[in-house]
Amino acid sequence: MSKRSMIVELLQGISTDQEATVKGWVRTKRGNKNVAFLALNDGSTIHNLQIVVDLPSFSSDLISSITTGACIRATGRLVASQGKGQSVELQATDLEVYGTADPNTYPLQKKGHSLEFLREIAHLRPRTNTFGAIYRLRHHMAYAIHTFFHQKGFFYFNAPLITGSDCEGAGQMFQVTTLDLANCPKTEEGAVDYSRDFFARQTSLTVSGQLEAEMAALALGGVYTFGPTFRAENSNTPRHLAEFWMCEPEVAFNEIEDNMDLAEEFIKFCVRWALDHCIDDIKFLAEHFDKDLVERLESVLEKPFVRLTYTEGVEILEKAVADGHKFEFPIYWGADLASEHERYLVEQHFKTPVILTDYPKEIKSFYMKLNDDDKTVRGMDILFPKIGEIIGGSEREADYDKLRKRAQEMNVPEKDIWWYLESRKFGTCPHSGFGLGFERLLLFVSGMANIRDVIPFPRTPKSAEF
Amino acid sequence: MSKRSMIVELLQGISTDQEATVKGWVRTKRGNKNVAFLALNDGSTIHNLQIVVDLPSFSSDLISSITTGACIRATGRLVASQGKGQSVELQATDLEVYGTADPNTYPLQKKGHSLEFLREIAHLRPRTNTFGAIYRLRHHMAYAIHTFFHQKGFFYFNAPLITGSDCEGAGQMFQVTTLDLANCPKTEEGAVDYSRDFFARQTSLTVSGQLEAEMAALALGGVYTFGPTFRAENSNTPRHLAEFWMCEPEVAFNEIEDNMDLAEEFIKFCVRWALDHCIDDIKFLAEHFDKDLVERLESVLEKPFVRLTYTEGVEILEKAVADGHKFEFPIYWGADLASEHERYLVEQHFKTPVILTDYPKEIKSFYMKLNDDDKTVRGMDILFPKIGEIIGGSEREADYDKLRKRAQEMNVPEKDIWWYLESRKFGTCPHSGFGLGFERLLLFVSGMANIRDVIPFPRTPKSAEF
Repeated sequence: MSKRSMIVELLQGISTDQEATVKGWVRTKRGNKNVAFLALNDGSTIHNLQIVVDLPSFSSDLISSITTGACIRATGRLVASQGKGQSVELQATDLEVYGTADPNTYPLQKKGHSLEFLREIAHLRPRTNTFGAIYRLRHHMAYAIHTFFHQKGFFYFNAPLITGSDCEGAGQMFQVTTLDLANCPKTEEGAVDYSRDFFARQTSLTVSGQLEAEMAALALGGVYTFGPTFRAENSNTPRHLAEFWMCEPEVAFNEIEDNMDLAEEFIKFCVRWALDHCIDDIKFLAEHFDKDLVERLESVLEKPFVRLTYTEGVEILEKAVADGHKFEFPIYWGADLASEHERYLVEQHFKTPVILTDYPKEIKSFYMKLNDDDKTVRGMDILFPKIGEIIGGSEREADYDKLRKRAQEMNVPEKDIWWYLESRKFGTCPHSGFGLGFERLLLFVSGMANIRDVIPFPRTPKSAEF
Repeated sequence: MSKRSMIVELLQGISTDQEATVKGWVRTKRGNKNVAFLALNDGSTIHNLQIVVDLPSFSSDLISSITTGACIRATGRLVASQGKGQSVELQATDLEVYGTADPNTYPLQKKGHSLEFLREIAHLRPRTNTFGAIYRLRHHMAYAIHTFFHQKGFFYFNAPLITGSDCEGAGQMFQVTTLDLANCPKTEEGAVDYSRDFFARQTSLTVSGQLEAEMAALALGGVYTFGPTFRAENSNTPRHLAEFWMCEPEVAFNEIEDNMDLAEEFIKFCVRWALDHCIDDIKFLAEHFDKDLVERLESVLEKPFVRLTYTEGVEILEKAVADGHKFEFPIYWGADLASEHERYLVEQHFKTPVILTDYPKEIKSFYMKLNDDDKTVRGMDILFPKIGEIIGGSEREADYDKLRKRAQEMNVPEKDIWWYLESRKFGTCPHSGFGLGFERLLLFVSGMANIRDVIPFPRTPKSAEF
């Protein structure tokens, strides 16, 4: 068995007039009585390698078994291509079929398919150009995240997914249990007897690893989490998933300005990486889904993000309303901004990404550092064109008494956060962090419109197939 | 506020006789009436920077608030150190205390603590030398994994954690639900009415992302997962966690020999990375927990792993028994190997890591490729000194009919794996993969004995604190 070459390397066209073996899946087959042209894709790139098959040299049974979707090995000579659109092609001297794909049943024939249909065959959609491009982008964005933080001396920190408490109050949680639901053990008072559950307590899937990451930052300096998080919200929208990925850096000694600097540098690093490493995939996605994609990606790199306070943002939005702009949701100081408000600021007013800071304490979490005005907290959200909020973060409350008071005001049970509070009792310091919704980033760099299309097997209400 | 330098960089001693600012946590304080020496750690390295404080220049209140565990900023001049054991020290000109640590209540005073006690304060244990070293190692091993596969052109692929089926039969699973356990909805027949659960079906936490990763490999070529997996097994041992991390590469066109080559290259890459990037942390851990650690790490790099079949392995073990060696568990062809058997082969017989292949089909999963003998499958386990099995994998059954038959024989419901079977109907090909238990790797490179000490917040039966 000869060693296979990756098509992405062969297409660089450096080593022509050499013997090569490629293995992959046939995308199309065309030709005439004497010659067949197979477009072969091995997943290493969006581009296919053209395999030229001199038909008289092969058995007709073999050739007729090679149809769209079949998996084959082709060995032959790599030569400069005469045809348009490719640098090299392979003149096959030997062909082997690993697996056929019956044209009557294989669902991915040549013609285009709707994204909705492809979600129903999520096990096969990686074989399409679109999802090949998206999954390669997804890999590259994950690798960019690890590279960025590693180069800065941060440590990857794995917060637990199964948690005994709902500290953040960030939303509905999934319960994790080994109890028999059909016959749940009860206490004498008739409540569920969690002492008999696996962890001898009620447990859920985490909504954020931030609180645990803070414990690590207050010892290691800079850390980041990157992994799945969960929301049991019954939101059937193109922007919500029940299981999604988040990246949450947490940094000792960073104050809110440092946090903004880090977040801006981070997201620009990721977008730059996408343009530098995935331009062929991005161009394909731009052509098919979002004509302005490349320009939009380049535009966020051009200049510093605009930074302003929530209060200033609300003033701009109130003025827009006074000038006749219609929003669906009312805007006033104290209101949580809706996506339409965020996008107005970014797309219409500033025409550049925006960092909003200093939100009313009532609409943010208990752990955000209270400003001296006693009304606002040092939260920050980064708002992006087309996406709205892509990053949310804050300087954390480092003062034990203030943090405890805020937790009480927001009804966070002290029994759930005794350990978190304790970090402010022993060697506390200013620190900050933020969370990036990974699929939001992927929507931005891929130009896709539905979050179900940027994660391999989406989990949404009433859907956990595969 | 002056910009802080990381202690790991200052200790390289390149830029002495310069002003510098460091921020970190005080490990110890000693000295006399005129001068205090603070050992400051900022988490960037296991080594502390010595801060020399000329006491008459500072208020005694400030100085007395700086005790073990306090978090401070120190600004001053970095000079070559006169003392033993450090290259440079900082002569403080300005000190700021961010957070004190009351000596009467701060649990991490100078004296050593048992690992058991430190597990009870998992939120503070990152501030110890031991856990600083372990978490830095954990970061580096994760980064090595991403680097290895990225350089090979593999793509990081995120399989879902919430799954609708128990395909692997790899063990007990945690149920994920939003149903009210106290008042569970029932069908007319009295069963739990899962149509009213969040996903409108019964769902669990995954035991492996392999089957989904195969779908990606059969399109993208080489992929790998790396993330949390779950087992709801009531195993209170130093080797088991309910939530642990796995790395699972899956590669199209790789046969069992390629799979062994990849796994051996991979794990040697990781161990080499640990020695190259974490030697100070490893030496600390060796000194305190495992004197032979460095030699053991170097030993696995020295030569190719021994490869033999399960059948040959059993023969060696049976001969050992015949020669008088006592095992706790019986050994015979068809038996699953116990840890004592694996370690005998590695530590006593071959004295080098071992790859065992071709196991009896009855003790392996349905998806492993059946050998022509119809008795054994192309599974492979890598056995390591001290650890036992660190990697398990196989060539996958690529033939639709054989795979379907094996699934039936092993009682895997076809309704759960229709999509997995379908991948063998359309463009199937030889492919292989394996799973690395990430915490097993960490036990190996850190020399720690209990798996609860190589993950930040361990989840075990009756324990989900923090």
